[in-house]
Amino acid sequence: MAATEFRQITLTEAPSGKLLTSNFGLETGPMPQPGDSEVLIRVLYISIDAANRAWMQGRTYRDQVLPGTKMAGGAIGEVVTSNDPGFAPGDIVEGDMGWCDYVALPASKVEKRQPRGPLTHLQSILGITGKTAYFGMLNIGKPQAGETVVVSAAAGAVGSVAGQLAKAHGARVVGIAGSDKKCAWLTEELGFDAAINYNSEPVMKALKRDAPDGVDVFFDNVGGDIFEGVLFRMNTHGRIVCCGAVSQYDTDTPTHGPRGVPGLIVTKRLKVEGFIVMDFDGQSQAEAELAGFAAQGSIKVAEDIVEGLENAPKALVGLLNGENYGKRLVHVADPQS
Amino acid sequence: MAATEFRQITLTEAPSGKLLTSNFGLETGPMPQPGDSEVLIRVLYISIDAANRAWMQGRTYRDQVLPGTKMAGGAIGEVVTSNDPGFAPGDIVEGDMGWCDYVALPASKVEKRQPRGPLTHLQSILGITGKTAYFGMLNIGKPQAGETVVVSAAAGAVGSVAGQLAKAHGARVVGIAGSDKKCAWLTEELGFDAAINYNSEPVMKALKRDAPDGVDVFFDNVGGDIFEGVLFRMNTHGRIVCCGAVSQYDTDTPTHGPRGVPGLIVTKRLKVEGFIVMDFDGQSQAEAELAGFAAQGSIKVAEDIVEGLENAPKALVGLLNGENYGKRLVHVADPQS
Repeated sequence: MAATEFRQITLTEAPSGKLLTSNFGLETGPMPQPGDSEVLIRVLYISIDAANRAWMQGRTYRDQVLPGTKMAGGAIGEVVTSNDPGFAPGDIVEGDMGWCDYVALPASKVEKRQPRGPLTHLQSILGITGKTAYFGMLNIGKPQAGETVVVSAAAGAVGSVAGQLAKAHGARVVGIAGSDKKCAWLTEELGFDAAINYNSEPVMKALKRDAPDGVDVFFDNVGGDIFEGVLFRMNTHGRIVCCGAVSQYDTDTPTHGPRGVPGLIVTKRLKVEGFIVMDFDGQSQAEAELAGFAAQGSIKVAEDIVEGLENAPKALVGLLNGENYGKRLVHVADPQS
Repeated sequence: MAATEFRQITLTEAPSGKLLTSNFGLETGPMPQPGDSEVLIRVLYISIDAANRAWMQGRTYRDQVLPGTKMAGGAIGEVVTSNDPGFAPGDIVEGDMGWCDYVALPASKVEKRQPRGPLTHLQSILGITGKTAYFGMLNIGKPQAGETVVVSAAAGAVGSVAGQLAKAHGARVVGIAGSDKKCAWLTEELGFDAAINYNSEPVMKALKRDAPDGVDVFFDNVGGDIFEGVLFRMNTHGRIVCCGAVSQYDTDTPTHGPRGVPGLIVTKRLKVEGFIVMDFDGQSQAEAELAGFAAQGSIKVAEDIVEGLENAPKALVGLLNGENYGKRLVHVADPQS
């Protein structure tokens, strides 16, 4: 029986300080009808990312998500009906579908995806986070065999791939994460050479032990005190890949910046570079290489799947509190064709 | 009559907080005698730089200057006697001669220089500061015609050249300096498009007026609050050239870092890069180009010459307090051949 009602999650109020599940509400309504050149999509998996929280703070690389509107979010879906010659029912598509179970979107706003391996890989290793790790580590960090690479939020979706990519390029890789359990997972499951629990010891001190030759590449997802701690251990001509600043997103009052900026950037002649994945050419080559790594098993694809659209707020709040292992997705539905 | 006594200035005690002239002492002694493969040099001009102060804080790109030793400093001198076949009396040489009027140095520690124009140009436009401006602005900042470039410490030795180089490449150039008099000098004498006195208005606010299209290149010599103020006005894909952090040198307690690091580096996809002039190839080509700019008058060479070795401490303390216009040198002696 075809669905006649759809559900969506709205950001009902702007978070004040830390994001809460009570900042969201679930709404239902009549099934959206696709207009000319639009497609109706059944949402399958929604990507949950720290960047979701940054979108609530103001304009980033996309418009701010304002209270009273559907929560934005990248998703994978299946075309149900199409009013565009480029799409047919059953096509797997990706786009900013937002937190909902059905959506009608202009065909120009979605992209057809060809699954390689499990469908979920399209949003983990072959998705934004996998490609972010790929371009950031390989095009900016450029680890060389024998160098030391440090990755913060190493158990996260991007960090877990970034660290494994550096390892595949012959670097010594040290992860930073928020619990002993995550640290054990990094070294035992993902092959990191060492891992530091920033909640149990100062990063700067721990790096004396775990990066005795200093740090050549720092792939940072966190900012704040962790950024500062690693900065002080960077080697001359080191590279800092600025991928995110998750420590600063879930707050109204971002703290002061790291000491040593810009002084140590000068004396150590560092390159500190921000990027987003869309800045790079060669997306399909990146996907092909990542799919190869995953198929060979030289990268273990870590996914953390939360069941049910209604749990998306909890999934994001939990991610901001660091509870995920690898790429967090919300499973909304299975494909029906 | 040949001199039989030499003078040198010693860092008698490590500065505690701000550097004072009382941290230095003048000593005299018998004229140094050059050993095998050494040259005896008459010091002519000593370069006074903010980096001199950073050398007292710890190891930078050179060893720390320790209390009880001769103050280090780059200088231009004239060979008096030579025990090395590569040098002859009358040769003009450059090296870290320190703050003194005569010095015996291994020939391998000095470099022969060929004056082009006034002798002082070897330490201003053709010296470390001129080449620092050249490589930093052109190899890292890479200003394009029509872009907006901001230079901090714009009335200093590096900033005055960096801003004029950006102007020569067709950019709109905004200087930041510490007095209305310096600002007037930047716009009226050096051709800057606008100048901001950071002591009379907040940089971030002033840039709304003076850089209405945002900032594409920031050439920073200062760090601290000025760095933060400009950071918030950077355009997407902007470049920040980290040349120095003079605001943090003359203190025991460097302040927190700039807010927005690394968050804005990510969202604006900035490149932030430190360098020192020795990192770059093409030094002689840089000198030739800079000499050409100076000869044509497309760069005005600003020099601020303090008379007498005994005034070197005052010259450095004054420079750290921002009193110089352009490149500060201490004139010790004239060449005698």
